[in-house]
Amino acid sequence: MTLIAFLDFASVFIFALTGALVASRQQLDIVGFAFVACLTAVGGGTLRDVLLDRNPIFWIAQPMYIGVACAAAVLVFFTAHRFESRLKTLIWLDTFALAVAVPAGTGVALSLDQPTLVVVLMGTITGCMGGLLRDVVLDDLPVVLKQGELYVTAAVAGATVAALARPYFPDALIPLMLCALVTWALRAGSLAFGWRLPVYKSRPPRV
Amino acid sequence: MTLIAFLDFASVFIFALTGALVASRQQLDIVGFAFVACLTAVGGGTLRDVLLDRNPIFWIAQPMYIGVACAAAVLVFFTAHRFESRLKTLIWLDTFALAVAVPAGTGVALSLDQPTLVVVLMGTITGCMGGLLRDVVLDDLPVVLKQGELYVTAAVAGATVAALARPYFPDALIPLMLCALVTWALRAGSLAFGWRLPVYKSRPPRV
Amino acid sequence: MTLIAFLDFASVFIFALTGALVASRQQLDIVGFAFVACLTAVGGGTLRDVLLDRNPIFWIAQPMYIGVACAAAVLVFFTAHRFESRLKTLIWLDTFALAVAVPAGTGVALSLDQPTLVVVLMGTITGCMGGLLRDVVLDDLPVVLKQGELYVTAAVAGATVAALARPYFPDALIPLMLCALVTWALRAGSLAFGWRLPVYKSRPPRV
Repeated sequence: MTLIAFLDFASVFIFALTGALVASRQQLDIVGFAFVACLTAVGGGTLRDVLLDRNPIFWIAQPMYIGVACAAAVLVFFTAHRFESRLKTLIWLDTFALAVAVPAGTGVALSLDQPTLVVVLMGTITGCMGGLLRDVVLDDLPVVLKQGELYVTAAVAGATVAALARPYFPDALIPLMLCALVTWALRAGSLAFGWRLPVYKSRPPRV
Repeated sequence: MTLIAFLDFASVFIFALTGALVASRQQLDIVGFAFVACLTAVGGGTLRDVLLDRNPIFWIAQPMYIGVACAAAVLVFFTAHRFESRLKTLIWLDTFALAVAVPAGTGVALSLDQPTLVVVLMGTITGCMGGLLRDVVLDDLPVVLKQGELYVTAAVAGATVAALARPYFPDALIPLMLCALVTWALRAGSLAFGWRLPVYKSRPPRV
Repeated sequence: MTLIAFLDFASVFIFALTGALVASRQQLDIVGFAFVACLTAVGGGTLRDVLLDRNPIFWIAQPMYIGVACAAAVLVFFTAHRFESRLKTLIWLDTFALAVAVPAGTGVALSLDQPTLVVVLMGTITGCMGGLLRDVVLDDLPVVLKQGELYVTAAVAGATVAALARPYFPDALIPLMLCALVTWALRAGSLAFGWRLPVYKSRPPRV
């Protein structure tokens, strides 16, 4: 299994867990859990593959990804009641999913020799779009664009580090590990210590 | 006209009716009716074609599909006030649209010799994504993920029946008819008799 | 630079301004501004390219588009507080973005010799989908489907004029200028003078 396949599997599994946790908050049935888990898990990577015209899409080439997402959904369906605070679990799981999905997307774009800006965008899209889809469809907590937290920022920073570091290393392993580290550290620091960028403050009253 | 083309036309027409009915609830103008009708009618099949890299997309190859969707929109624009309960009409029409779209998507994937899991997913996506798009964009009743009803479940079950039955028949006709029947029966039974899967019940208070 | 490339750049810049203005209403940070600006700016054209199977997608072939969208986001981040009524600015900017994006999409489909109906749809999709994505994701004012205003109608009319006029001109320049003019005039007239199509009126009480 290549490094990118491993990252894809890991991010599919963890994002599926987050999708299923959101489904548990909506009290769906087990097929609903699987549906939301799959949407969240493969949404970002699917968009990446469609945009880069990779054929077949990763989960059509290897349907086991869907099996992994469904397994995560079943796991959550039978165990979610054990987590006292599902929201907190969800948000922390999501940090790991992000930190794995961003290098997965970045790695694919690097392996296709895309220009730096496209590499950064593909890492960001792969990392952020699954969660965004989950939130838009289920109308639940919109983690990606939550005011005053680093999320897209963490993804952009991680992907940028990988893209800039890549020429100095013989293969993509260390740049992608740096990417995961930077992404996770920024996202987790934002949650734990309140790290953030200055937000736009309107001076006249909002209309 | 092939069987799949017939199913595509029928599902486009019926989904377009449901989209136009939602537009009537939002009191849009006739172009708004056509826009929502087209989005609902071709959304699922478009996603199927993009994911499977079928070129051209079915309604670009045959723009008559768009004409059919617009005709449905015009029909509803001038007659919807006759239905006393548009919501009930909408939900029952939607059961037929689902029962036609799922075999349409399943048939395409079968004809491309995709693995069983991909066949099931394509049937489900074709059946569920048009309605999901309609609901997400118009922010109206989210039929697809409504708690405690069979919808995605009906689509998955119908597509699975077709995929499993296909090897035992010389062509896809009977498996696709079975698919339509199972999908419609489960969805309609869910509405009429309250058939459902057990939903997830949180034991600790929701956070 | 070709005419279509110029239209694409102009529509990306103006749509990015509108996306960033919506981000300012949500008080996001600068990366959030850039994210929403990019989504709005390239959303419609990306969908057009995916549907028409143009490879690579326009902003992957020419990542400068993303740079332009980010520049618009930075510009708005530092100046939006100067606009007394951001909503009004947003809505008027959006009329220009629409009037540039519709001919951009129409021109691409014309250059690919698509049938008339597909040309009209591609103009409409390119013009309307970026703003629709922005509104669905940010859950802010849904400009595209606002009851009793011409928006999709303006796009359809403009694209239709270009498609019908094209055979009478040696190149696409004048048809696309007519397209921009018709689109803008209808949209602006709708805002300024209340031009509209009759909306559907339900006679029985809504259910």
